[in-house]
Amino acid sequence: MAGRRVVVVGTGLIGTSIALAVRERGAEVLLDDRDAAALALAVELGAGEPLPPGPAGRPADLAVLAVPPAAVAVTLLDAQKRGLAAAYTDVASVKAVPLAQAAELGCDLTSFVAGHPLAGSERSGPGAARADLFLGRPWALCAPAEAAPAAVEAATALARACGAMPVEVGAAEHDRAVALVSHAPHVVSAAVAARLTGADDVALGLAGQGVRDVTRIAASDPRLWIGILSANSEPVADVLEAVATDLAVAASLLRDGSDGAATHVADLLLRGNAGRSRIPGKHGGDASAYATVQVVIPDRPGELAMIFQAAGIAQVNIEDVTIEHSPGRPLGVLELSVVPEQAERLAAELRARGWSVPG
Amino acid sequence: MAGRRVVVVGTGLIGTSIALAVRERGAEVLLDDRDAAALALAVELGAGEPLPPGPAGRPADLAVLAVPPAAVAVTLLDAQKRGLAAAYTDVASVKAVPLAQAAELGCDLTSFVAGHPLAGSERSGPGAARADLFLGRPWALCAPAEAAPAAVEAATALARACGAMPVEVGAAEHDRAVALVSHAPHVVSAAVAARLTGADDVALGLAGQGVRDVTRIAASDPRLWIGILSANSEPVADVLEAVATDLAVAASLLRDGSDGAATHVADLLLRGNAGRSRIPGKHGGDASAYATVQVVIPDRPGELAMIFQAAGIAQVNIEDVTIEHSPGRPLGVLELSVVPEQAERLAAELRARGWSVPG
Repeated sequence: MAGRRVVVVGTGLIGTSIALAVRERGAEVLLDDRDAAALALAVELGAGEPLPPGPAGRPADLAVLAVPPAAVAVTLLDAQKRGLAAAYTDVASVKAVPLAQAAELGCDLTSFVAGHPLAGSERSGPGAARADLFLGRPWALCAPAEAAPAAVEAATALARACGAMPVEVGAAEHDRAVALVSHAPHVVSAAVAARLTGADDVALGLAGQGVRDVTRIAASDPRLWIGILSANSEPVADVLEAVATDLAVAASLLRDGSDGAATHVADLLLRGNAGRSRIPGKHGGDASAYATVQVVIPDRPGELAMIFQAAGIAQVNIEDVTIEHSPGRPLGVLELSVVPEQAERLAAELRARGWSVPG
Repeated sequence: MAGRRVVVVGTGLIGTSIALAVRERGAEVLLDDRDAAALALAVELGAGEPLPPGPAGRPADLAVLAVPPAAVAVTLLDAQKRGLAAAYTDVASVKAVPLAQAAELGCDLTSFVAGHPLAGSERSGPGAARADLFLGRPWALCAPAEAAPAAVEAATALARACGAMPVEVGAAEHDRAVALVSHAPHVVSAAVAARLTGADDVALGLAGQGVRDVTRIAASDPRLWIGILSANSEPVADVLEAVATDLAVAASLLRDGSDGAATHVADLLLRGNAGRSRIPGKHGGDASAYATVQVVIPDRPGELAMIFQAAGIAQVNIEDVTIEHSPGRPLGVLELSVVPEQAERLAAELRARGWSVPG
């Protein structure tokens, strides 16, 4: 990116993170946002310099339009009228509608490649931005038929400069895929969480880790999400209808109460097992490839350090870690995920040092 | 529990964990299971001695029936005929149906208090058992109107001996509560995961943390769960129908595409925000009470030890920890949850020691 000039329009979480990432790789970055406070914060965080208003002088190599889905096409048209850059890309979570709108508005589609980095956070705004937000993440690229090779190259170079893995995919295929693995699960999570609004404290006191996991993403910003869902309405509606039908059928089978009905509900649970097992693990491998070692830990400073030190001494690499606190008790259970060949060594090392390692 | 004699019928995950817990507190434990291999493993793990067949000699103080919901009533009748104990309790995830069945079979309800420890695992069987499984967890107790004070006392003492928090609740109220916070979310998780069975690899490659969280419990054992759902069918069906309706309405609103329709979808997301915020945090407090400090870490042994050591030196207590690996990259992002007053101190300490702490 050294010597390249990149314009970032929209200094929210994604735009500012891209700006930080390409600056680290030596690019010159110019920032723009209609929210002056967001722009000032991004500049202060070292993401780049403010873009001067009006027509561009020397066009940048690439302009990144980090705006909500509904704003992509108009922002592209405006940027192209100003001659901001030689090539353009965006970061919206949906692709088909913005591309159609851009064509309708008469945007130049030879210089535009739509993009979608698969990274984010429940947090938003430039303050949550990180240069490493995209490290190792997929970055979908949807080139219109008209796109010039140079535009594809510029968008691909951006994804790589951010440490992401470019994935070329058609706009319609992209939108169906994210409806399935992101947008529809988001609405379902909200629908489960919404049931809790009327719950009494006894019921909430019986909540365990399961419902916490199912409803985590229900905490996200509704304003951001309604824009995404509206711009991918048909694919999301398809998935939601299928899930709604499965749930309505399961409800009716449960009320039926016959053995045959129970078998059909069990079929849904088995399909759930099968679908869950298809999600790649964190390292892109099979999620079940890791073994878990549990350690009972007193809830005090320094305890975790000693455990991870012991793991280091045993030459064991911790792949994942979770702490299950026991509410109201000074004890917790630490779950360490390791490759199976190292599990026994880790357990032995920890037991030898006096920790309680059940199983 | 010293000097007490406890019979545990059913040496699966829950029964064996209870046996281990009360043995640690000094109780004598006798174990029974119709699966000889499960019984032998529980005995080998130190959970107790096998219960001799036939009529009991000296009755135990308490018999714990750790069997599936559908087997509770018949197991209770059999145990009472054998005179196994002075008092009886169970651990099933549903309460009303087994209690009604027990009354119908003519069980003695003066000596029975239904119980449900809110703890578990995706794993099952005695091999996954832990004496600390119930530490700090709620343990629902549903005493029938006929229950003698001594039986209530025995069941309460068991919950306390396991380190759990006894919660007295009516059977119907219990079943409605767990339908909402456990059973229905389980079916919803399965329904989302089931959609992935037909997905192509491109779609699965775009899966992020959100869909992983929503579908985690979809990996659980369908045989266990169909028994639970069947025994709590009406309350679960009520919740599933409400969720299905919300999803079907959301799908239809998305297809409608008007601004008014979008507002109604946003309402569902807002209700999701509100419901999610009602779930108590891990320590029984508000989940949003913790601040998050992110650290970029090389993926190698010893790194975590040094970070937790630094936290210990800074006198900061880590409340929760997650690692977000970057697939295919030797870097990850560690998220440390701490009380807000300690967040800045931790970030400063880590930065001073050379780690990258964004924000």
